[in-house]
Amino acid sequence: MVNNFCSVPLWKCSARLSAVAMGNEKADLVITNARLINVCTREIIEDAQVAVAYGRIAMVGDCSKCIGENTKVVDAENNYLAPAFLDGHIHVESSMLSVGEYAKVTMPHGTAGIFMDPHEICNVLGLDGVKYMLEDAKRAPLKTMLTTPSCVPAVPGFEDTGATIGPEDVAETMKWDECVGLGEMMNFPGIIYSDERTHAIVGETLKAGKTVTGHYSVPETENGLNAYIAAGIRCCHESTREIDALAKMRLGMYAMFREGSAWHDLKELAPALTKRNVDSRFACLISDDTHPHTLKKYGHLDHIVKRAIEEGIDPLTAIQMVTINVAQCFSLDHELGSITPSKCADMVIISDLNECKVEKTFIDGKLVAENGKTVVEIKDYVYPAKAINTVHMAKITEDDLKVKAEGVSADVRTIEIIPEKTTTYERIVNMPIENGEIKSDVKNDLLKMAVFERHNNTGKHAFGFVKGFGIKSGALAQTVAHDAHNLSVIGTNDKDMVIAVNALIECGGGLVAVKDGKIIGKVPLPIAGLISDKSLEETDALVSSLETAWKEVGCKHPSPFMTMGIIPLACLPELRLTDRGLVDCRTFKFVDLIAESHK
Amino acid sequence: MVNNFCSVPLWKCSARLSAVAMGNEKADLVITNARLINVCTREIIEDAQVAVAYGRIAMVGDCSKCIGENTKVVDAENNYLAPAFLDGHIHVESSMLSVGEYAKVTMPHGTAGIFMDPHEICNVLGLDGVKYMLEDAKRAPLKTMLTTPSCVPAVPGFEDTGATIGPEDVAETMKWDECVGLGEMMNFPGIIYSDERTHAIVGETLKAGKTVTGHYSVPETENGLNAYIAAGIRCCHESTREIDALAKMRLGMYAMFREGSAWHDLKELAPALTKRNVDSRFACLISDDTHPHTLKKYGHLDHIVKRAIEEGIDPLTAIQMVTINVAQCFSLDHELGSITPSKCADMVIISDLNECKVEKTFIDGKLVAENGKTVVEIKDYVYPAKAINTVHMAKITEDDLKVKAEGVSADVRTIEIIPEKTTTYERIVNMPIENGEIKSDVKNDLLKMAVFERHNNTGKHAFGFVKGFGIKSGALAQTVAHDAHNLSVIGTNDKDMVIAVNALIECGGGLVAVKDGKIIGKVPLPIAGLISDKSLEETDALVSSLETAWKEVGCKHPSPFMTMGIIPLACLPELRLTDRGLVDCRTFKFVDLIAESHK
Repeated sequence: MVNNFCSVPLWKCSARLSAVAMGNEKADLVITNARLINVCTREIIEDAQVAVAYGRIAMVGDCSKCIGENTKVVDAENNYLAPAFLDGHIHVESSMLSVGEYAKVTMPHGTAGIFMDPHEICNVLGLDGVKYMLEDAKRAPLKTMLTTPSCVPAVPGFEDTGATIGPEDVAETMKWDECVGLGEMMNFPGIIYSDERTHAIVGETLKAGKTVTGHYSVPETENGLNAYIAAGIRCCHESTREIDALAKMRLGMYAMFREGSAWHDLKELAPALTKRNVDSRFACLISDDTHPHTLKKYGHLDHIVKRAIEEGIDPLTAIQMVTINVAQCFSLDHELGSITPSKCADMVIISDLNECKVEKTFIDGKLVAENGKTVVEIKDYVYPAKAINTVHMAKITEDDLKVKAEGVSADVRTIEIIPEKTTTYERIVNMPIENGEIKSDVKNDLLKMAVFERHNNTGKHAFGFVKGFGIKSGALAQTVAHDAHNLSVIGTNDKDMVIAVNALIECGGGLVAVKDGKIIGKVPLPIAGLISDKSLEETDALVSSLETAWKEVGCKHPSPFMTMGIIPLACLPELRLTDRGLVDCRTFKFVDLIAESHK
Repeated sequence: MVNNFCSVPLWKCSARLSAVAMGNEKADLVITNARLINVCTREIIEDAQVAVAYGRIAMVGDCSKCIGENTKVVDAENNYLAPAFLDGHIHVESSMLSVGEYAKVTMPHGTAGIFMDPHEICNVLGLDGVKYMLEDAKRAPLKTMLTTPSCVPAVPGFEDTGATIGPEDVAETMKWDECVGLGEMMNFPGIIYSDERTHAIVGETLKAGKTVTGHYSVPETENGLNAYIAAGIRCCHESTREIDALAKMRLGMYAMFREGSAWHDLKELAPALTKRNVDSRFACLISDDTHPHTLKKYGHLDHIVKRAIEEGIDPLTAIQMVTINVAQCFSLDHELGSITPSKCADMVIISDLNECKVEKTFIDGKLVAENGKTVVEIKDYVYPAKAINTVHMAKITEDDLKVKAEGVSADVRTIEIIPEKTTTYERIVNMPIENGEIKSDVKNDLLKMAVFERHNNTGKHAFGFVKGFGIKSGALAQTVAHDAHNLSVIGTNDKDMVIAVNALIECGGGLVAVKDGKIIGKVPLPIAGLISDKSLEETDALVSSLETAWKEVGCKHPSPFMTMGIIPLACLPELRLTDRGLVDCRTFKFVDLIAESHK
């Protein structure tokens, strides 16, 4: 595929680049004294030199002939030099940061490129939202490759969104320079049960010769997985068991080992590589979702590489998993992912390989970050008004929150969450009915949850009960609720829940915690109700104060908002709650909240 | 890149293919009881089953649900099942066979696809010749991928050809469905010294997002090789030393290990993989040139895989080198090169892995060959008249062959050949001058050679002397003379040389051996003076009788015509003879035949 993410296309500079390699012209940059991590042969080449011109690698070897008086020479001081990192699957919205700010934050961690699936904003604003994020991305050197959101809504018929994406939209985006493929095809039922429209969405991508990325999240690796891959879906980041990742690699699918903020799969998946001597070319490391706190405290792919090494993956293999393997997945390895002649000069200097400690990051041959800081200017970008005003619903009262029921008690279909995992379990629990109403049962950690449609003021909403958050008082609410991003709220009492919901309506969306009638933490996310207009530091400070708040309400989990935010995601097992109701994701059918009433 | 070489594009059948994997529709073919060679993970999967529909793999695993009453079930009888083989670089003309006949011959050896660089016919007939070969190819299921000849003439200014190819021609062919890239860029001086036209030829390919294939044949792996790869050239089959192949792989270039009829590089190159534990994904096995005798006696890629195993390369790695690695080189791995869902069902059943004994070959799910025979009908194809009448020169007399010189003796620049290698050496040899003429010196094995322009009747010709053929009497002549394919002749005496040359003019080109005034062997190659219109068996019988003939004239080499045929190839080291004169390929300058005269 043609690479539109370099400073100069190769065909415009190849003659000059060859001249630099020959020493007939001089390089812009030469890095000396490096321990080169060769991801092509999986070797360390000692005492390496690399010459760069026109933003590309001209020469790897003895570059003395390439050095002229205007050549900048950087002594790597016997540190490692590796290709800069590529994140094969990321929703930038999960960071709550604008793309420019996200770039500013991740480049010091060695990230040179991301394969961005902006399906969060697309659910709210459609392709306009996607365009805004691409505009936003242009202000930073980070290569931001678009994979067009494929599932808007995520699971059609089960939720209300601000937009829909069809095959014709996908076909249109395939013409965009920024587009390298299709975002995660979460509608795996549509694929495996041969829904024509779902296959047409994939088909428009295949016709364009671009890459279809996947999302196959069920623990079934036989007919279903085969049927899914047979559609031409090339990668998947939804493995949670060693056998899932192994089955995918064996079936020629790139298994993207995920280590995100709210789901940590590496421990389970690493044995797919470490327990046996398999070719690892089909394995990648990706983040998927990264909360601002994770970015600030742990970093990005550098952290994930470190984690992979901790889990026993060979360091060079781990580096391949964030460089050449990702580039090959997207058929961009002729331009990205290795330090070899002609490629974009995207490189990192690493001082400690096992810790994956990044000292300097170069993109297109330019130093963009060092010592943990971005050193290039990132200009401002202001999102258009349409992107700022996206919470379209009327304020609610306590009446809107009543879960009405008849009888003495009811066997209720409750959702049990697992902290740091995407999966939920359905648990049928007998709950009392008081005054014709089922209420949160704090003692048994059974909390009421409501999801309100917030895009088109339809008034649609639905209720559920969730177990596992451990909240003792108050309420949490957010407009980040995958993937439809309707307004969701969990609480111990209706009063606090109302305050939480209405606070978000007022501020244009975000996250909020309420206790005893007071807002005790709030992260405004004015851009689409998903993204902050502030820096990482400011956003993280707000999130930190929210963390204090969620501890104050009694929750002990590391990221309750992330876990809560995917309860409406009706393409993950087992039981989910959208604005339309409870969805059994094993059968893809709506189910009643009450399994059985007892008179 | 979009694959135009399948029976049904994936986007037209993906929904149906998924249905087959789910068992909701039935497969056309299921292979059971196979030891699957998984080239993705480099493993053998025991007791595997594979379901096929629409010419593609639907399912790998327990395929019982996919079997219906119309499903053909093939029991692999615990034999190996591997992806069918891809030859990443081949000039079909070297087989002297039409493409249809070549397909018929190679499919029983497991070949499913070839990346064909038809630069021989292109030198004679231009893009018309290329089109004829593509038409010819259509009559067989073998996937014939075109890489557009990049160097016609091979080294501009040093030879006369029947056509020239420029950047605009390359741009035109990039629009063709059959075209996947650019053929071997032999003009490495043009690349490394930044010739704009040469880079433009590469550039038109890069712009189209297709693959540029290479030819870097000098033993220099520093600035020159870097400068060459910096131009975006992705693979090269011209390594002759372990270090060449290793340097290329380290620089992100696919090193294509060659084992052709006239040059056997595997023994020298295999240690690049066997001596160290490097990632082998950048290594391929290719044939480049295959004489009919080799095809008949040894086979094609099956033989090369066997040879690789003999040289110590792990059998699964060797299979990867003719399947997934080749597909990745051409960015076609999403469609070809592995037995995984969605891919074209190109498969081989192998009974003995170390011998690489192919029992059955399937292409697009159809059995095309078994027990050494092609079992599908290959229709006839008749090349147009323009392709048949291509020897445009007047008959010669003995006067045309005199190498005039003054003095008693001369220090002559002679060409020493190395049997089975592409390299030649320049040897300055003192030769006597008799009656103002230098003649062949049979005793010292110094034979006169002449090359005559044969495309446009210009009368151009040049002389040299060659050492190493060991011919004792008679003459050999051919119109197969890389890459300009002018008419070349070697002989011990002028009389036999004249007979040989004129015989070829009469029959429209081919190969001929003459002794004592009589034609003792002749292979007519009426198509472009390069290709037979006969079957492999008939062509090989003619070549065999020619072999008897060349032994009769005293030559003991396995393929003297192949070796002779590349003496005019002025992009290989060291000394070469074209119709314009002797070329020093170290300096790329014409040099005089006589280095110094002695009075």
